[in-house]
Amino acid sequence: MPSSINTNKSTFFTLRLASDAIHVLDQRALPREQRILKITTPDDMIGAIQDMSVRGAPAIGVAGAFGIVLSARGHRHLERGRLIEAVQNDAEWIREARPTAVNLMWAVDRMLIALEKLSAQADFDNDDIVRELEYEAQAIYDEDIATCNAIGEAGKHVIPSGSSVITCCNTGSLATAGYGTALGVIRSAWAEHKSLRVIPCETRPRLQGAKLTTWELQQDGIPFTLISDNMAAVVMRDGLPGAGPIACVIAGADRIAANGDSANKIGTYSLACLAKTHGIPFYIAAPLSTVDFNCPSGGDIPIEERAKEEMTHMGEIPITPDEITVYNPAFDVTPAELITGIITEKGLVTPENLKTLQG
Amino acid sequence: MPSSINTNKSTFFTLRLASDAIHVLDQRALPREQRILKITTPDDMIGAIQDMSVRGAPAIGVAGAFGIVLSARGHRHLERGRLIEAVQNDAEWIREARPTAVNLMWAVDRMLIALEKLSAQADFDNDDIVRELEYEAQAIYDEDIATCNAIGEAGKHVIPSGSSVITCCNTGSLATAGYGTALGVIRSAWAEHKSLRVIPCETRPRLQGAKLTTWELQQDGIPFTLISDNMAAVVMRDGLPGAGPIACVIAGADRIAANGDSANKIGTYSLACLAKTHGIPFYIAAPLSTVDFNCPSGGDIPIEERAKEEMTHMGEIPITPDEITVYNPAFDVTPAELITGIITEKGLVTPENLKTLQG
Repeated sequence: MPSSINTNKSTFFTLRLASDAIHVLDQRALPREQRILKITTPDDMIGAIQDMSVRGAPAIGVAGAFGIVLSARGHRHLERGRLIEAVQNDAEWIREARPTAVNLMWAVDRMLIALEKLSAQADFDNDDIVRELEYEAQAIYDEDIATCNAIGEAGKHVIPSGSSVITCCNTGSLATAGYGTALGVIRSAWAEHKSLRVIPCETRPRLQGAKLTTWELQQDGIPFTLISDNMAAVVMRDGLPGAGPIACVIAGADRIAANGDSANKIGTYSLACLAKTHGIPFYIAAPLSTVDFNCPSGGDIPIEERAKEEMTHMGEIPITPDEITVYNPAFDVTPAELITGIITEKGLVTPENLKTLQG
Repeated sequence: MPSSINTNKSTFFTLRLASDAIHVLDQRALPREQRILKITTPDDMIGAIQDMSVRGAPAIGVAGAFGIVLSARGHRHLERGRLIEAVQNDAEWIREARPTAVNLMWAVDRMLIALEKLSAQADFDNDDIVRELEYEAQAIYDEDIATCNAIGEAGKHVIPSGSSVITCCNTGSLATAGYGTALGVIRSAWAEHKSLRVIPCETRPRLQGAKLTTWELQQDGIPFTLISDNMAAVVMRDGLPGAGPIACVIAGADRIAANGDSANKIGTYSLACLAKTHGIPFYIAAPLSTVDFNCPSGGDIPIEERAKEEMTHMGEIPITPDEITVYNPAFDVTPAELITGIITEKGLVTPENLKTLQG
């Protein structure tokens, strides 16, 4: 079990590489409490990813890389060859902490490539290996923020001044090393013209929209109106009273197949269908590390099913009768034909042109 | 404030006309607790309708009629002409307890017509008037159950053996005097072939699907799988793992305009759009007392907005940051062109043929 501390900071970080531990803001406690978990072992990092203390595809990629650092630190006392084997072994477990977001596999694989290069450096001792892995993990973290900023720049024009934008789940600083993907696009549009309204869907069952996106928007002073997921259709049709026209829907992604089919938080497919019905553009915003060019189409993306208690309970409180059957897929797949454009750090492309960004 | 008692009955009633009070099952406490409110004044009945202790268009119609009985009982000591005036005055307030469900206005108006006839009976004293109003209210109650049974018979063929059916909110015994509208159709299909699966949408923000529909289905032993509202689209596309194909969506209604446009619980329009996208029939099940032939189209139906706490809190527990802006319309309007058929006690008709049932 990781130790935890409480903070009342007005600014926050999602996760940090520190000398004593990886510090993770426990997103399960937001928005009521800012609790920092100090994670010191790969097992605890896997636990934090699985219980969604840290969540969001880019953020769990960074968390996976930091988990490799914890593995190397923990095995520092071993003989050099055994250290490398032990980290490779831990990497397999970290890689499988959650199945859908490919950023986790991408980041762990990048750390393993770095490790392989280090293992070829006969003059590097264990301390050198740990240090270099820390550098690589921190580089993944830093690049994620830069990538989010670039996504924001590439997409900000899709939200004109005076318009409203619908989004779901949380795709902000909390879902990334910082700034955000879909919420990064919204932040960049806001920075540009200071006139828009965000309509976050609350995003059942875990309410990331109601708990996390509202919290981030409130801190940035960006105007927003929370809706429940089942209100999106009527808001698309009639608009929000007193707000500008709905310019678009922007969502994040946990894995994008080579053909542009995109897995994202459950409910994204619903929004894409409804956007099509109402003639509203639908965008996915994600780093290229979310694209799995080895995955031909959405049907090949594994979809995680999560515990029924996410639906039958609110925290510890039961909301349904006991012993009922529920269906709780964490993600759904939106087919490429419903996606107007994919906003990446290399620009906004149509799904069919996604392959031009490979490499 | 009405007094209350707790019961552990295996059977239940939604509301009852008793000699001491109107007994109302407090739906806010379900499914965890069966609490009966004893309501003795029109004001408390208005409160119970507004705070949704009793909800569902047909049920609040019956509740409104019972409220007229409470008014007459309370004014029994007045001079006969003053009694009639006092009841007419209370009726205006009861009529406006909630704005969308026309059944409330319909039932109150029917009670007022009865009262007018009684006032012409010079040989009827106050006790006679109270008794006759009790008879009329009980007739509304009894007819509602018979009507629900007829709706079930008229619609049961739309759910073939082995199929699944999506529904939302609660349209069962709890939403009516008994049996239900959309859930009555499901009950009749189940009685016919004992093979179907219900997929109730949980129905944010008040979770009537998760709390009430599951509770009714569990008691009847009808198989069901609860989903959150944002899962309906992907379930329509991919089906529910291990369940039969989605035969249709069936929802209730709070007011149906003369052209067939139907106001119902928020999220119904979303389901209708998604059903259209996926080629799935979409039905409305409601008694003819829900049809407002004086209302030309859906745009003329008033839509109630409810308190923001329904979205920001779960019971007493806050789930969002403080002081946020939310949008909380209780209903939305589904246009006639998305409705495959309207199932009434006089049969299943297309929206354009609804007018043939008038009168």
